[in-house]
Amino acid sequence: MGVQLQLDDAVVHYAWDNAVAPRLTVDPGDTVCFDTRDSADGWYGPDSSDADVLAKGPLTGHPLTGPVRVRGAEPGDVLAVEVLAVEPRAGFGWTAIRPGRGLLPETEFAQAFLQIWTLGADGLARMRRREDIAVPVAAFPGILGTGLAERGAHSTIPPRHNGGNMDLKHLTAGSTLYLPVFVDGALFSVGDAHAAQGDGEVCVTAIEMAARVTLRLNLLPGDAIAEPRLRTPVAPGTHGAAGPYYATTAHGPDLYECAQRAVRYLIEHLVRERGLSREQAYVLCSVCADLKINEIVDRPNWLVSAFLPEGVFTA
Amino acid sequence: MGVQLQLDDAVVHYAWDNAVAPRLTVDPGDTVCFDTRDSADGWYGPDSSDADVLAKGPLTGHPLTGPVRVRGAEPGDVLAVEVLAVEPRAGFGWTAIRPGRGLLPETEFAQAFLQIWTLGADGLARMRRREDIAVPVAAFPGILGTGLAERGAHSTIPPRHNGGNMDLKHLTAGSTLYLPVFVDGALFSVGDAHAAQGDGEVCVTAIEMAARVTLRLNLLPGDAIAEPRLRTPVAPGTHGAAGPYYATTAHGPDLYECAQRAVRYLIEHLVRERGLSREQAYVLCSVCADLKINEIVDRPNWLVSAFLPEGVFTA
Repeated sequence: MGVQLQLDDAVVHYAWDNAVAPRLTVDPGDTVCFDTRDSADGWYGPDSSDADVLAKGPLTGHPLTGPVRVRGAEPGDVLAVEVLAVEPRAGFGWTAIRPGRGLLPETEFAQAFLQIWTLGADGLARMRRREDIAVPVAAFPGILGTGLAERGAHSTIPPRHNGGNMDLKHLTAGSTLYLPVFVDGALFSVGDAHAAQGDGEVCVTAIEMAARVTLRLNLLPGDAIAEPRLRTPVAPGTHGAAGPYYATTAHGPDLYECAQRAVRYLIEHLVRERGLSREQAYVLCSVCADLKINEIVDRPNWLVSAFLPEGVFTA
Repeated sequence: MGVQLQLDDAVVHYAWDNAVAPRLTVDPGDTVCFDTRDSADGWYGPDSSDADVLAKGPLTGHPLTGPVRVRGAEPGDVLAVEVLAVEPRAGFGWTAIRPGRGLLPETEFAQAFLQIWTLGADGLARMRRREDIAVPVAAFPGILGTGLAERGAHSTIPPRHNGGNMDLKHLTAGSTLYLPVFVDGALFSVGDAHAAQGDGEVCVTAIEMAARVTLRLNLLPGDAIAEPRLRTPVAPGTHGAAGPYYATTAHGPDLYECAQRAVRYLIEHLVRERGLSREQAYVLCSVCADLKINEIVDRPNWLVSAFLPEGVFTA
């Protein structure tokens, strides 16, 4: 069944670069317990404030733990990454609004904003200053990826053929991610764990945290896939908070603009019906509302919706 | 609590046109049991075949049952439509591929194809010629809408501000749809019921059927909304078939192209791993695979996934 290994976060890398030397070599079937840094590399603490967001400067690369070389992995193989556990390593998480970086433009959210969440032993992330709002922790790594075939340093920010910054909230414990292998040894790295996130991650950050991520790395030889796939036992709508669900819809020929409008409507609703500030509402959308494409064939208009689980309101 | 009324499908209308005379007038809080025709207006029977698809000619308008005038409704109000029941009125449903009309282009699906489903008393839709595949019935009306403010006849095909052809699979019994009111009396109509559908309805049809749709029509005065909203008790991922879930992903700057690729990958998987024809696979995606926007902020690449519930494979 393979052995269990550890990889700490004392050394990280900030780009996809297949010249980075492997920190660990494993056999297919081995399990690795990775310590990962949060996406801001430890910049924020539980007492950080809005001013710390701009002081940090924009993200240039996520700190990744790895790479891990998988013996025998060759281009054309598939690396099957079983997610065994994802645990917070601190009692808090954070969500930041950085003007101009989310789904909604800077004209609508001009101020930097930082939301601190308390990660409790009860499995809930409580919203600081709105303690009546609790998002169940459904933790997953935002970034899992194999080494790229292309030489040089490639940004960790966009998702790529190798996986990378997929922000796929369904990769909680119990799920398996299938990644294409492009280089000998696969050169797998992981980072950017999220305590919870909505599909879309609309304000640009989830509940960001330092984590311990336990993964089993299996190899499926010669089973080439063009882009990552996954299998999960958990119904896609049930990661995280309970219902009922309130959803806004937006129709039109452009899915991106539809998504913007659906989120705008949900923010308006949260401000009006739940008394949140606009920033709190945007953050809540980012960490627990899911974007769905309901219909993509009734030309000229498609339909996109944003589903909010109302179970996050505990009062 | 209002009275219960009936509206048969002896007379239907095929466009949104606020000059169509109301067939029924109700008070807010009344319940109406609507008989709806299927989207092909009764063209198909349980023994229909591929050849019948092109013989039918393309859809020019869905048959809608209504309009119903709601006493006291005025522009700026919201019509809250409670879905109480959606029941098949025949023992079969159908799904058609019409070349050039779905998410994937005619170059990939050049032949018309018709899939008949048996709607059984066990609540399952069984795929004719692949009886090992059963999609749980999770029935909803594909079209619910209010009268438009604009004069003239407007196509029923695209979703609009009035709701219309939203194909929102979450509008099963127990959910409530909130529709803007644009004209005096609201002029509500309903049609195009689906026994089951995946988010996206990718091949352009769901499991289409004639239905009996029972709705309670409530009025929320002066609570204007720009586009429809809904509330549902059912978790978005749990309408229909059980897991585990297999999902494909696609990344890139264009959500529409990402959706196309995610569906393509899922079709490839179904053909290769489950022995379906390409047409059967496309149909199965349309009736039970859900399109999700996982990430829409990590420029230049967004991520879209297609989630297939593997519980539909019963063998």
